[in-house]
Amino acid sequence: MKTDVQIAQEAKMAPIVEVAKKVGLEEDDLELYGKYKAKVSLDVLKRMEDKSNGKLILVTAINPTPAGEGKTTVNIGLSMGLNKIGKTAISALREPSLGPCFGVKGGAAGGGYAQVVPMEDINLHFTGDIHAITTANNLLSALIDNHIHQGNQLNIDPRRITWKRVMDMNDRSLRNIVIGLGGKPNGVPREDGFDITVASEVMAILCLADDLQDLKERIGNIIVAYNYSGEPVYARDLNAAGPLALLLKDAIKPNLVQTLENTPVFIHGGPFANIAHGCNSVLATKMALKLAEYTVTEAGFGADLGAEKFFDIKCRFAGLKPDAAVIVATVRALKNHGGVPKEELNKENLEALKKGFENLEKHIENVQKYGVPAVVAINEFPTDTEAEVEYVKNRCKELGAEAVLTQVWAKGGLGGEELARKVVEVVEGNPSEFIPLYDVNLSVKEKIEKIAKEIYGADGVEFTQKCIKDIKQIEKLGLDKMPICMAKTQYSLSDDPKLLGRPKGFKIEVRQIRISAGAGFLVVLTGDIMTMPGLPKVPAANNMDILSNGEIVGLF
Amino acid sequence: MKTDVQIAQEAKMAPIVEVAKKVGLEEDDLELYGKYKAKVSLDVLKRMEDKSNGKLILVTAINPTPAGEGKTTVNIGLSMGLNKIGKTAISALREPSLGPCFGVKGGAAGGGYAQVVPMEDINLHFTGDIHAITTANNLLSALIDNHIHQGNQLNIDPRRITWKRVMDMNDRSLRNIVIGLGGKPNGVPREDGFDITVASEVMAILCLADDLQDLKERIGNIIVAYNYSGEPVYARDLNAAGPLALLLKDAIKPNLVQTLENTPVFIHGGPFANIAHGCNSVLATKMALKLAEYTVTEAGFGADLGAEKFFDIKCRFAGLKPDAAVIVATVRALKNHGGVPKEELNKENLEALKKGFENLEKHIENVQKYGVPAVVAINEFPTDTEAEVEYVKNRCKELGAEAVLTQVWAKGGLGGEELARKVVEVVEGNPSEFIPLYDVNLSVKEKIEKIAKEIYGADGVEFTQKCIKDIKQIEKLGLDKMPICMAKTQYSLSDDPKLLGRPKGFKIEVRQIRISAGAGFLVVLTGDIMTMPGLPKVPAANNMDILSNGEIVGLF
Repeated sequence: MKTDVQIAQEAKMAPIVEVAKKVGLEEDDLELYGKYKAKVSLDVLKRMEDKSNGKLILVTAINPTPAGEGKTTVNIGLSMGLNKIGKTAISALREPSLGPCFGVKGGAAGGGYAQVVPMEDINLHFTGDIHAITTANNLLSALIDNHIHQGNQLNIDPRRITWKRVMDMNDRSLRNIVIGLGGKPNGVPREDGFDITVASEVMAILCLADDLQDLKERIGNIIVAYNYSGEPVYARDLNAAGPLALLLKDAIKPNLVQTLENTPVFIHGGPFANIAHGCNSVLATKMALKLAEYTVTEAGFGADLGAEKFFDIKCRFAGLKPDAAVIVATVRALKNHGGVPKEELNKENLEALKKGFENLEKHIENVQKYGVPAVVAINEFPTDTEAEVEYVKNRCKELGAEAVLTQVWAKGGLGGEELARKVVEVVEGNPSEFIPLYDVNLSVKEKIEKIAKEIYGADGVEFTQKCIKDIKQIEKLGLDKMPICMAKTQYSLSDDPKLLGRPKGFKIEVRQIRISAGAGFLVVLTGDIMTMPGLPKVPAANNMDILSNGEIVGLF
Repeated sequence: MKTDVQIAQEAKMAPIVEVAKKVGLEEDDLELYGKYKAKVSLDVLKRMEDKSNGKLILVTAINPTPAGEGKTTVNIGLSMGLNKIGKTAISALREPSLGPCFGVKGGAAGGGYAQVVPMEDINLHFTGDIHAITTANNLLSALIDNHIHQGNQLNIDPRRITWKRVMDMNDRSLRNIVIGLGGKPNGVPREDGFDITVASEVMAILCLADDLQDLKERIGNIIVAYNYSGEPVYARDLNAAGPLALLLKDAIKPNLVQTLENTPVFIHGGPFANIAHGCNSVLATKMALKLAEYTVTEAGFGADLGAEKFFDIKCRFAGLKPDAAVIVATVRALKNHGGVPKEELNKENLEALKKGFENLEKHIENVQKYGVPAVVAINEFPTDTEAEVEYVKNRCKELGAEAVLTQVWAKGGLGGEELARKVVEVVEGNPSEFIPLYDVNLSVKEKIEKIAKEIYGADGVEFTQKCIKDIKQIEKLGLDKMPICMAKTQYSLSDDPKLLGRPKGFKIEVRQIRISAGAGFLVVLTGDIMTMPGLPKVPAANNMDILSNGEIVGLF
């Protein structure tokens, strides 16, 4: 059997200009980055303003398990499948971060015959977006520290600087640092730390911005610190919006690449799915909607975090109306949710499947709460038994969500055709009546409780003293009318990663609320959220190389 | 009078594919970055292996003064002038760093009608080379700290890690930091610091590498730390050469852009001119030599540092044979060297000019010591008087170096034609007999003394105790046969920035020697060298903006 890399390297890529033409983009709309990558000019959106939008499909998943679900693979397979059955379709995906690539997992751009190429470029520097975000983030940091060093006219309290530096690297040593040492010429000493770049609020902003002007305004609204009187200091107080936007002038443009079957894919923006909203850029999604009959997009983690934020943050801000949600599950993963350890997943186990199915059941219910029709993709694995697959299909049907077997990893678009047909049928037959879960004008506590109870299935929410203080501060600043961005474990519907399936009788503990005033949401932390990963004992980098003939080794 | 930005923005750029065609590059040789930038495949060098090289011209300068000399402007004007008189010519220049751009000076890519475009791209992220170098440098840092955290099998002494992190930012607060705080999961505490990216040894290596294989070997040779037994720990001991080279696979390819007159320019690599050798990449220079009759290249700072390192490091490593050196001077700058303060430079002052000319005289003598013919470019300024210009011309002639007036800032290639004709005449009439200043097999002390005495005109060298210890260590490691990379003030031939003109009766004090075993040279420090600049009270960033119509403000 061929590896992902072998399959990717054997791909016959079409010039990106040709891929673009298929969806009505002209050569002048593109800024080429080599032959197989391009940035697309935002002028396209203006030109197509009057054109109606295509359909918007979210691909999400059950709570992830070590068994693997293949959310991105199904996304790619579905858009290839749609193209195969005669619909134009574009996948709109997130950009991978370099840090994890050298850490544990190597690259990531789908798998098997459902991949995006050129995958070595996508996984390395790509078109430089993440580097631009790093630079913008760190220019803001340099401006803050320079301001203090040069007299601190704004009275910034160095103990209350909330803006951290970032690096696109897994580097635990930079989590907690002391900077500004070495005496007067070398700045003012204070505690600081680095996050990984994709955790930067600049990334969240880039992914939510409607255009350059909106980007600039959101950057200006970032709260970087508090002064000695406890009042917020904004990025605009440091004149930072202009230069940061300038640094992001190209990063804001969506990147066009292709699947192994030469269908178009936007890969643009990749914010964290815990402390941020975990979706690709609004601009890429909007552009895809103008260009194709179907836009197949994704959101980080399982549907409790990913779909919820996609609906309540991204769609709300961007005025998007999703037409359907595909929930990806595997029989193996459902059995894992039902209590079967990884080693025993190859055996049929209908009892465990039944128990684990409850996880999927809850996600189907959740999607339907938003007025969005749900389709389930059972991502096939050779060990699945007929009885198991039938069980899932029947149960889904009872819940009003058709389930379809996909074989996209092994067969590419062909393996996604049935899913594609089902999605078209559902979208054409059941018009979406999308409505966000909550009104932003509810109180902060009410919004959190609504998510916890209705989406996670919790009995209620416990707010720590710290959190109650945070809410008071947020209300005082008049920032309480923003949507909520939950930071919770991805592995469970609850805030305890060990509670699989569909946990009941639990409460969510909210420890802290951070303000992302630039992105425009409140980050609600239910546990310790890691914003700077570390490298493992044997980093993936150890096996990476590029040979003198240009062959890349160990990237995947 | 139009500003540099206005002139640049009015430029009629040719598609870079057209620019490339003029020098025999085919479309398949290029990786486009938009319409006006391209990376050139290294396969071109293989294909043209048998083709003879064109002529190599170094443009260098007197010791810089606040009056300004215009070295890059003359470089660009000369190559445009050569093209105007019917010779194919390519400028090979250094990439600007983002840090200083947001600090003091805004962008930099020539001036007036002698500029390289698109200058906003060149000054921002360009083709991402510097970001790739930042990432490679910091991956090595992460691997070091992770190695210690994971058990420290190599016995690295955390107090003797010589490898620092980098950022392409002017950020004084990061000069001296403590990392790894926060307890066991967060790494091992130690002192560290950030340099600006262009000061990274990875940048020097990229600029000296002959090909990807050579790059990888040099990276492997970097000394990152010493172990508890005092033995060096190399990057290769951490398996870092492969992944770092992989990160640099595109950065190693020269970038092609164009002048305002659509002639080709390589802008590739930009190492510091003090702790590194300050020249653009060997690969860009070699490629230009294959493609054009004349390659016009540059080196950082004045000729005492720039030309010396170009000859003794870059040309030696790369087997290049320079055919002539153009030394740029202005009448104003020479008067400043003669003791006239900046405010009074508008007045004719032959006495001061005579005194200040000695600075130029020494640089002419120095260039000639290498067996390379020298041509002087007097970069015209409206306040220059006829008598002043005549004086310089006559004195140069006496020294065997013709001087030519250039008006490239105001007239572009037309203003460089006379210089171009003179350069052609000199190159065709006086074959260069280039020979490096010293034999690398001399002792470290002998090499340093040769540079100090013969190039700087010093009476001798004083070595501190620290330095003598350094030399012993270097000899013990068998690394004493590498060339010398002097880190000295650029403002004087001596190590005292206040001694202008041609100082006499001074000694050079050498404080410390650092080993750049990857780059392949010994960095000899004669004073405090700043490797991480800071932002001024009002950073250039403050005035930068991008308007909603895409217009860029304040970048220059």
